[in-house]
Amino acid sequence: MSMSQLSLETFEIGLKALAAVLDKAQAFADAKKIDPAVLLSWRLAPDMFPLARQVQIVADQAKTGAARLAGIDPPRFEDTETTIEQLKERLEKTLTFLKSVDAKMIDASADKDLTFPLGPENKGHMKGADYLHHFVLPNFYFHLTTAYGILRSRGVDLGKRDYMGSIPIRMT
Amino acid sequence: MSMSQLSLETFEIGLKALAAVLDKAQAFADAKKIDPAVLLSWRLAPDMFPLARQVQIVADQAKTGAARLAGIDPPRFEDTETTIEQLKERLEKTLTFLKSVDAKMIDASADKDLTFPLGPENKGHMKGADYLHHFVLPNFYFHLTTAYGILRSRGVDLGKRDYMGSIPIRMT
Repeated sequence: MSMSQLSLETFEIGLKALAAVLDKAQAFADAKKIDPAVLLSWRLAPDMFPLARQVQIVADQAKTGAARLAGIDPPRFEDTETTIEQLKERLEKTLTFLKSVDAKMIDASADKDLTFPLGPENKGHMKGADYLHHFVLPNFYFHLTTAYGILRSRGVDLGKRDYMGSIPIRMT
Repeated sequence: MSMSQLSLETFEIGLKALAAVLDKAQAFADAKKIDPAVLLSWRLAPDMFPLARQVQIVADQAKTGAARLAGIDPPRFEDTETTIEQLKERLEKTLTFLKSVDAKMIDASADKDLTFPLGPENKGHMKGADYLHHFVLPNFYFHLTTAYGILRSRGVDLGKRDYMGSIPIRMT
């Protein structure tokens, strides 16, 4: 598997799965007659990000990760979403950007030395392959799982398959 | 990066990070004078697994994933752990097993057709590379994140670095 498959394929599966999870959150809010903003502001802990921010971070891990590996500047998306519909648009914009990234540039990035901001003052330095596998993917899955966990902990009817999404598997 | 690095390295980083997270859970229980079993039986939702089971599943995703890719039978570890110390031993046994796996066998597994049980009645069929990237790793990170989320939601003093573990990064 190439670096581009390992990044772009994984991001696409995860972002689409998250969009479908948000549809279930909307259906839950409709059925219970609650404001979806209640769900979007829920957190697993007081010092963890709320659901809306978790979704933005999932999208940005994919966007920034792919752009950095490809050596290009990603588009800037402002963090202004306040509704499930807007968050789904954010995921959609991110998917559109990922489709525009040159896979060959990502494929050539495994041994590239990358430097990237870590918090407000520090910088991280990693090889491209390490960056994808030990930084971007753990972060991507962390925020994807946490978004799912927030909703499931609030009673939204979700199962592991909603998290996994449309993976390339044949079942018998 | 080879299939063996992508699996064994990732598992080792994650399992060691989880062991350190459990140390923080123990310290939290000691400081608050609470029975650690309370933490081990906590869940994010009534129909999700409690912390102790999440830890067992993280270990088993690594054990079973590595064994299936290498084409060998993994050792059987009974799910009998009831203390943090026992769960840390489970992680340790798993790390020892991973060290014994022939990396070359895993490296040769990218195009191998794998068949594995999915629930009590079904079977899944995937290529080795797909199995690692779209099945084992999302599951591994799901249960690692959920274990972390359970503890952080209960007030254990954890940050993202505790989840990420000792990744190959240089900071300036």
